[in-house]
Amino acid sequence: MAFETKATIASFGGKLFKLSHNSTETTTPMAVNLYLPPQSFTSDSPAKVPVLIYLSGLTCTPENCSEKGFFQHRASQLGLAVVYPDTSPRGLGHPGETDAWDFGVGAGFYVDAIRDPWRRGYRMESYVAHELPRALFSDPHYGRFLDADRVSITGHSMGGHGALTLYLKNPGLYRSVSAFAPIANPSRCPWGEKAFSGYLGDDREEWKKHDATELVKAWKGGDLKALVDVGTGDNFYKQGQLLPENLEKAAKEAGVEGLTVRYQEEYDHSYYFMATFSDDHVNHAAKHLGLL
Amino acid sequence: MAFETKATIASFGGKLFKLSHNSTETTTPMAVNLYLPPQSFTSDSPAKVPVLIYLSGLTCTPENCSEKGFFQHRASQLGLAVVYPDTSPRGLGHPGETDAWDFGVGAGFYVDAIRDPWRRGYRMESYVAHELPRALFSDPHYGRFLDADRVSITGHSMGGHGALTLYLKNPGLYRSVSAFAPIANPSRCPWGEKAFSGYLGDDREEWKKHDATELVKAWKGGDLKALVDVGTGDNFYKQGQLLPENLEKAAKEAGVEGLTVRYQEEYDHSYYFMATFSDDHVNHAAKHLGLL
Repeated sequence: MAFETKATIASFGGKLFKLSHNSTETTTPMAVNLYLPPQSFTSDSPAKVPVLIYLSGLTCTPENCSEKGFFQHRASQLGLAVVYPDTSPRGLGHPGETDAWDFGVGAGFYVDAIRDPWRRGYRMESYVAHELPRALFSDPHYGRFLDADRVSITGHSMGGHGALTLYLKNPGLYRSVSAFAPIANPSRCPWGEKAFSGYLGDDREEWKKHDATELVKAWKGGDLKALVDVGTGDNFYKQGQLLPENLEKAAKEAGVEGLTVRYQEEYDHSYYFMATFSDDHVNHAAKHLGLL
Repeated sequence: MAFETKATIASFGGKLFKLSHNSTETTTPMAVNLYLPPQSFTSDSPAKVPVLIYLSGLTCTPENCSEKGFFQHRASQLGLAVVYPDTSPRGLGHPGETDAWDFGVGAGFYVDAIRDPWRRGYRMESYVAHELPRALFSDPHYGRFLDADRVSITGHSMGGHGALTLYLKNPGLYRSVSAFAPIANPSRCPWGEKAFSGYLGDDREEWKKHDATELVKAWKGGDLKALVDVGTGDNFYKQGQLLPENLEKAAKEAGVEGLTVRYQEEYDHSYYFMATFSDDHVNHAAKHLGLL
């Protein structure tokens, strides 16, 4: 579906486009922000730039990280586009979908739900991994700026879970992955257990298909090209919602190389943490996208 | 008055402190954020760092620019503290103080009001220029990190007006000034006319004491050391709320040197604009504070 441009905002020499399009997967209009770097505007027929997809955490919209994550800072220097999708369908009207901040609206968890009523529309996995990039890359206006063959993925918290699992489930789809404070073992934390029960049901074998710590055990894609940052002052980390150690252990036991997990002293779960290290994550992606 | 530390947040290698203290000028508790750069934590007795005071625009609290302005990015590299005061007293209960977004709460305009009831508490000029820095510099905990002799000031929109006027009214108090999209001639724009009528009354001679375009005509402090950025896509600029050309013209006619006004193509009034150029404004301050 074609994208409607709701706003165009100058940012770090490039432009942030606030877009909307009708999604077949979610059956709703979906908001998405697209940042194009200055390199996209230097000539009438600029070279296509590689793309970093950023998946947001619980409760977020495309705006939060666009405003507070500062990915544009480094992306503008290197010539990288950034895509900020939304975190769930909005407006489906499923009973209870706005009752909790960690389930339903704002909390799609980047899975295709199989339980009713969620299986209608709560299909953020297919939307983010396939429908949205296809729509962007084939868009008559925006597609000409974007290199469909050079895509990396990153995300924060629930979005870190999304980035890691989509990467691990789709070898070759992304050149690299990174995550800030990801929910790295959702089958074993309260957030994940609630979301997976609701969207997927009680069969824990089904859950394993959406759990980075389980998926990494079966990874056959070679060097993982994965960077993870976790703040040691992050209350959700301390409460056992993130469990990055489980991911590290599973990768190690499976003999999977290329996972770097950094524990950042005193940092919390907020955008202050992300803003501090977003340059590093853009650099990580850029290295694997041929920009560095 | 002593500062209460409400939160401590790791940011760009340094720390952002969310503080509160009781102000004599406003007669209320006042929130203020203080960013200390990594250099403040490298030893048990670190050298005092210079200070950049950032004044926010209409409706803002200390949080907006701390989260979205990106000043910590460059301040952390150079070793500069940043102080983010609030924009008005809160909770005084003056009739009508929350009726409008451009007058009263969130809109103190950095003047000492002389009209009733505002003259009680709406004393943001004395608070920002004198009480707050004195309180910070003499604070037993935070004062030891801050160099009271090296202070610069900056601000956005209403806060750009505040930065320019406090700088021009107090030669020697600040080493330099900068502003993003400042209300540069408030006596001649709707925002300024409303605020000055309300806080100062109908005597336009009184208004001139708080109008950068008027104050610059009498400036005797030598080179102005002033950097101003305005976006050409800024709707408030287009509507004549900012009037930076009037400031430029007045400075030129008065023979005042050292004012650089840059018109940034397509940028709007938002934090996207500020984040793009905050490195430049920190560099401008740092140059005059002896850091560059």
